[in-house]
Amino acid sequence: MLAYSDPVSVSETLREELLEFAVEAVVLAGAETLPFFRAGAAVENKLGDGRFDPVTEADRAVEIVLRDRIKARFPGHGICGEEFGTDSGNGLTWVIDPIDGTRAFVSGMLHWGVLLALFDGARPLVGAMYQPFTEELWCGDGRKAEFHHRGKVRPISTRQCSGLGDAVLATTNPGLFQGEGREGFARLESAVKLARYGGDCYNFGMVAMGYVDLATDARLNPYDIQALMPIIEGAGGVVTTYGGENASMGGDVLASASIELHEAALRLFNG
Amino acid sequence: MLAYSDPVSVSETLREELLEFAVEAVVLAGAETLPFFRAGAAVENKLGDGRFDPVTEADRAVEIVLRDRIKARFPGHGICGEEFGTDSGNGLTWVIDPIDGTRAFVSGMLHWGVLLALFDGARPLVGAMYQPFTEELWCGDGRKAEFHHRGKVRPISTRQCSGLGDAVLATTNPGLFQGEGREGFARLESAVKLARYGGDCYNFGMVAMGYVDLATDARLNPYDIQALMPIIEGAGGVVTTYGGENASMGGDVLASASIELHEAALRLFNG
Repeated sequence: MLAYSDPVSVSETLREELLEFAVEAVVLAGAETLPFFRAGAAVENKLGDGRFDPVTEADRAVEIVLRDRIKARFPGHGICGEEFGTDSGNGLTWVIDPIDGTRAFVSGMLHWGVLLALFDGARPLVGAMYQPFTEELWCGDGRKAEFHHRGKVRPISTRQCSGLGDAVLATTNPGLFQGEGREGFARLESAVKLARYGGDCYNFGMVAMGYVDLATDARLNPYDIQALMPIIEGAGGVVTTYGGENASMGGDVLASASIELHEAALRLFNG
Repeated sequence: MLAYSDPVSVSETLREELLEFAVEAVVLAGAETLPFFRAGAAVENKLGDGRFDPVTEADRAVEIVLRDRIKARFPGHGICGEEFGTDSGNGLTWVIDPIDGTRAFVSGMLHWGVLLALFDGARPLVGAMYQPFTEELWCGDGRKAEFHHRGKVRPISTRQCSGLGDAVLATTNPGLFQGEGREGFARLESAVKLARYGGDCYNFGMVAMGYVDLATDARLNPYDIQALMPIIEGAGGVVTTYGGENASMGGDVLASASIELHEAALRLFNG
């Protein structure tokens, strides 16, 4: 299990190196998905209780490559992955979601990605998201963010939105909000200009690129959100739980294009 | 307005030619979208009444190219497009949705496509769907269907699904179903293994490719569904309204991987 601890100090030089490594690693590991995408890959039921939670062979293949590369390059670092659990380390921990959006993946759709973050004990320092079929990559370190597509690289930033009434909101599945969260989400949805469903990690990538203003999902795991935090923050956005707290451990999470919009959305959600 | 009329007879040779033309035309016209995709293109409010219905410059640019190509190649044919209305012709009418999924398009997401069909007065004979950013193309003529991606072409077919309990269901927005349709959709959703939201034309493309079993959307226009019908039917699937009738004029439409699944889904939806 991933847990908070005293944050490890990282030099600017090392932070650059970590971000470069994260980008190279997700591109390399992401290629493992392609033989399985739209190929009728075997789907297992991870929960074993009748609930549908597909895990493909691709999921495991990606995580194996990422773990191998991390161990070879940073043998002292910890690793926390969706498929193969947590290896503790020196206080810096790589957090892996081999395929975020497995339901989209097994349905042949495009909104999924390989996620990799480095957690310093308090926050994710760097993050990368890669979609190997479309060759789209998002990366960031909390101060800057980039989008890479077929060899082209450009800086990305969130957009300025005048308020909730002008905002585009995206969530994977509104039904995942429970109890008061469901009412909170309904208030948000009725206040915005446009609400979109589906999307998984792409919703958060689009906040960083300035095409969506609010991305939110309920009951996230740490590996679902950590890679996206340094990207969105690096693009000028904000990511917290609905309590306004650190989203590193997941939960019900909101990402916003600006602090003003974020505060307005939290107030409305919390009634 | 598009309306039913006595179907025009079309030879096998002409049908092949029409399908080839449809494929070439959507690829050519689809390129018009790329300068506008994720580029902050101006968005207009087509309804003018405060409801959000984005139309981009891209939408119009695509339809202009398609109309020009059609007029040059088949001057006697009619044209019915989302943006520029209907020109009547000799009984064969090209039906254009320049960008299906404009909300996805303006949100920077990937699940949108250029749709083109040829309507013979009774049914669409051929159809093509193209996503220019990912270079994915689906086409079909009711007897066969293909998927093209970056120069590779392969035949596609729907999958056999043992029943509703094993099915993946996709809809763009469940909130679009009204009245009894809303209850019908809720019954379907609770019967299937997995329900996915978002997707627009991709949901139907995935039925044709065998990764989704049921795709449904409410209140469709003719141009939203006609291009997808010969693709899904050519891949072995079925498309009708919830009344079991011809879906050419849109409405509340269901596409299924097989006739057995379709009939089971219609029965459950209709209570």
